Amino acid sequence: MTRSVRIALDAMGGDHGPVVIVEGAALALARRPQLAFIFFGEQSEIQPLLSARPALAKVSKVVHTSVAIRMDDKPSQALRYGRRNSSMWLAIEAVKKGEADAAFSAGNTGALMAMAKICLRTMPDIDRPAIAAIWPTLRGRSIVLDVGATIGADARTLVNLAIMGAAMANIVLSIGKPSVGLLNVGVEEVKGIEEVKAASRMLRSASLPSLSYQGFVEGDDIGKGTVDVVVTEGFTGNIALKTAEGTAKQIRQYLREAMTETILSKVGAFLARGALAKVRAKIIPPNGGVFLGLDGVVIKSHGGADAADTANAINLGYAMVHHELLRKIRDTLAIALSALTDGAGGGTVVDPDPAALEAARMDE
Amino acid sequence: MTRSVRIALDAMGGDHGPVVIVEGAALALARRPQLAFIFFGEQSEIQPLLSARPALAKVSKVVHTSVAIRMDDKPSQALRYGRRNSSMWLAIEAVKKGEADAAFSAGNTGALMAMAKICLRTMPDIDRPAIAAIWPTLRGRSIVLDVGATIGADARTLVNLAIMGAAMANIVLSIGKPSVGLLNVGVEEVKGIEEVKAASRMLRSASLPSLSYQGFVEGDDIGKGTVDVVVTEGFTGNIALKTAEGTAKQIRQYLREAMTETILSKVGAFLARGALAKVRAKIIPPNGGVFLGLDGVVIKSHGGADAADTANAINLGYAMVHHELLRKIRDTLAIALSALTDGAGGGTVVDPDPAALEAARMDE
Repeated sequence: MTRSVRIALDAMGGDHGPVVIVEGAALALARRPQLAFIFFGEQSEIQPLLSARPALAKVSKVVHTSVAIRMDDKPSQALRYGRRNSSMWLAIEAVKKGEADAAFSAGNTGALMAMAKICLRTMPDIDRPAIAAIWPTLRGRSIVLDVGATIGADARTLVNLAIMGAAMANIVLSIGKPSVGLLNVGVEEVKGIEEVKAASRMLRSASLPSLSYQGFVEGDDIGKGTVDVVVTEGFTGNIALKTAEGTAKQIRQYLREAMTETILSKVGAFLARGALAKVRAKIIPPNGGVFLGLDGVVIKSHGGADAADTANAINLGYAMVHHELLRKIRDTLAIALSALTDGAGGGTVVDPDPAALEAARMDE
Repeated sequence: MTRSVRIALDAMGGDHGPVVIVEGAALALARRPQLAFIFFGEQSEIQPLLSARPALAKVSKVVHTSVAIRMDDKPSQALRYGRRNSSMWLAIEAVKKGEADAAFSAGNTGALMAMAKICLRTMPDIDRPAIAAIWPTLRGRSIVLDVGATIGADARTLVNLAIMGAAMANIVLSIGKPSVGLLNVGVEEVKGIEEVKAASRMLRSASLPSLSYQGFVEGDDIGKGTVDVVVTEGFTGNIALKTAEGTAKQIRQYLREAMTETILSKVGAFLARGALAKVRAKIIPPNGGVFLGLDGVVIKSHGGADAADTANAINLGYAMVHHELLRKIRDTLAIALSALTDGAGGGTVVDPDPAALEAARMDE
């Protein structure tokens, strides 16, 4: 029998609280019977919901706490009142203690990241964690990171993002050697910022076995699905993600308006409703971001997620544990470390190419 | 009678060359009879096109050159063979010499910016130029800048972008005091990079008369149209623009596929074709980017633009000249300069707020 995968759930996070989290866990369990759960939160709210679902109750445990992190608090505020005793903190701590394999929350992203960093700490060789999103593309799905955990990244941090994103893509997309691109403002080698150019040289020279580095990609390559993993620092990644969300919302709104404008368009929309629903479903990104770089698996769900979305995010956590995300990252980090420091060409990796620099000055 | 507005056209730029540029000029002239043109390029190609359009020919002049800048050349290459004698260079130089009021090209963006910087130079108090795009939003249109001219920006450069973007918005949107937002990863004051936070403090304290500063906006605020002017440095701006373009293309593709999948959806799409065409039109941004910060007006059209798009971009150039873009920018720059250096609170403007800094450290 397969070993069970234990998920620690912050039952109080998100806009809907335990109702949606418990229902989501039940749906996730139906798909993955190896799951087991620890619910952290208001016992009087969680227990009745569990009692109504005997199959779920059998693999679940409830740990009571009345402290819940508010959605709009700053991380510093959340830490002040929620460190050590909030449902969010306790869920993360369960991973730290080895009582759970992954933590899940639909709560305040900033607070969750701050607590995860303090409690789990980052992996050796990783300075700063990242948030990875699953992005729907014309070719299927891609992993985009960092979408907002850390502002700014030096070349080595970008290489680490590539390694972590590839490990996640390996699991999510079932691809042995995912293709990786660095987000930049142009595909010519001379463009873009120094850190991105240096990271590109490092990725080329390291030839990591777990990923296939493709060079620079631009903003419109994300939606095209040009590569499986798109790497950028958190400021740009967050703005790219939210800009895409904004554009998608905008077009949905245009469609809604257009389709109810005239009788003809209303009839047309009615006949094509199945097709339009499919388009809507494709526009919405699958729920669940993964926190990468931490010494533990943490899954973040959208605050407004419904039970089906929650189940998707929980099953994403299941996959990360079952397919050994952390081991995969560690293995490649070790290879990268030797390739980029002791290995052949270690010195030349970070040396700027004089011809490219000269051209860049001209192009300035 | 209104003074004429003279546009210097790079007739060889873009994917279609003189055929589209001449036709675009004819369409622009039909809308704005005050326009006059100088076409730079292959006389043997341009002259016959003009001869077929007597009204246009009457207000046009052709200056022959056989040197044209290729679309894919790096700026450095373009400068090597095209400085002083290409159609692109000559169009810009006509502005420098006072023979034209604005330059127009559908050619290589990087080369156009490089030549414009060398030939026209930047305005006093402006270090680095920017490219401003007109972005369709749910509320109408917004100006977004910089979308790729300059990588990185310090606080003062971001303030200058705000000033220039507001001057352009004043003209394009006919708004006396456009609202301005700084693109950031969160609306809380503690988030984001140092330069963006410092620029925010400067814009608040300067209280410039030509714009209404609204604080931080996020990626999804662009499509919502939360503010009239969205300010960011060129790396992030370019990636935001291209990501939005990618998302729009992606959704168009989904719609196309969905609407031809079943007989029912085909009939529905046929009945709703008027509504769908309207949506398509709304998704496509109006053609024409404006180069800002230069001592002259330069308009960039999409390489693939058709005649109608070209006419839009030319008329955008007309508006910038007619409504005195450069004077408006200069006026506010002068006010900003005194408000931010000699004015009240000049010293405190760039001082970090200790409470915010402390909170930021906690939130790190």
